[in-house]
Amino acid sequence: MQTNTSTEVAVKMVLDNWHSQQSRVTKLINSLSDEELAAHTAPGRNTGVYILGHLTAVNDRLIELQGWGKRDYEPLDAPYLLNPEGSVHAQPPIADLRNYWTAVNERINAAIATMSTEDWFAPHTAVSAEEFAKEPHRNKLNVMLGRAMHSGMHLGQMNYLQAKK
Amino acid sequence: MQTNTSTEVAVKMVLDNWHSQQSRVTKLINSLSDEELAAHTAPGRNTGVYILGHLTAVNDRLIELQGWGKRDYEPLDAPYLLNPEGSVHAQPPIADLRNYWTAVNERINAAIATMSTEDWFAPHTAVSAEEFAKEPHRNKLNVMLGRAMHSGMHLGQMNYLQAKK
Repeated sequence: MQTNTSTEVAVKMVLDNWHSQQSRVTKLINSLSDEELAAHTAPGRNTGVYILGHLTAVNDRLIELQGWGKRDYEPLDAPYLLNPEGSVHAQPPIADLRNYWTAVNERINAAIATMSTEDWFAPHTAVSAEEFAKEPHRNKLNVMLGRAMHSGMHLGQMNYLQAKK
Repeated sequence: MQTNTSTEVAVKMVLDNWHSQQSRVTKLINSLSDEELAAHTAPGRNTGVYILGHLTAVNDRLIELQGWGKRDYEPLDAPYLLNPEGSVHAQPPIADLRNYWTAVNERINAAIATMSTEDWFAPHTAVSAEEFAKEPHRNKLNVMLGRAMHSGMHLGQMNYLQAKK
């Protein structure tokens, strides 16, 4: 596909939005102690640690979904993605989880830097050529948009870990 | 600006995302009784009613921000946008607030239907021509993206109004 100014602007908007959501999560967790992060966001709802593990697993899977290589943290899926909080699966120490979050996002940022405008409009790896011909919005840029929205939804919940004003 | 397939795809993605977030809010509030909507999303945090009023005010303001006409519900700003919950400003009955939410979104949908692909890349009304020349991402499409993200953040909180599974 041909690219032009509007397309470049649209790609920038979606990527800026992606970076903004990830940065907000990072800033929030950096402002919280391990104890604060381990608290429930609301009574009977997920802890900050669960949500952080969940977002890390989702971002890690995104690397494969986008065709950027093999993911690093598949063991996060059982405790934070495939099962609800409190399932009997090994969880890493919180300090490690914080590092995984940083590392996954650094990998994603490095991959983003390799992408041309046109690359973003190619299909992600979970859509067939036949499906993509009919639904060209199922592209790599849309993955970033959807995942940013997902991060934002959970960020709204994690904000409840902060002291009330 | 010239448009092409990639640009059209990008516009569709952002608008689909907008509609999806608004629909999720609508579906959630329709599933809740007035009493459930009036509950706090977490102890000491906003009620569902406050968040609904807040999102309605934000969507109402969006109409003017996009140059789609005068807004309808300016009195929502004081109780739901400019002040925190519990301020002494008149609040409409919950039934009215539900109707305002529907009406505002119908107006937005009608306005969206009038927009060409190119229109989305024009500046919104709060950016100057000089600023826009330097920052062409401050366009009408980006307003939809940012507001969808904002809705999603609050949707994550409103989800806590639902019974625990």
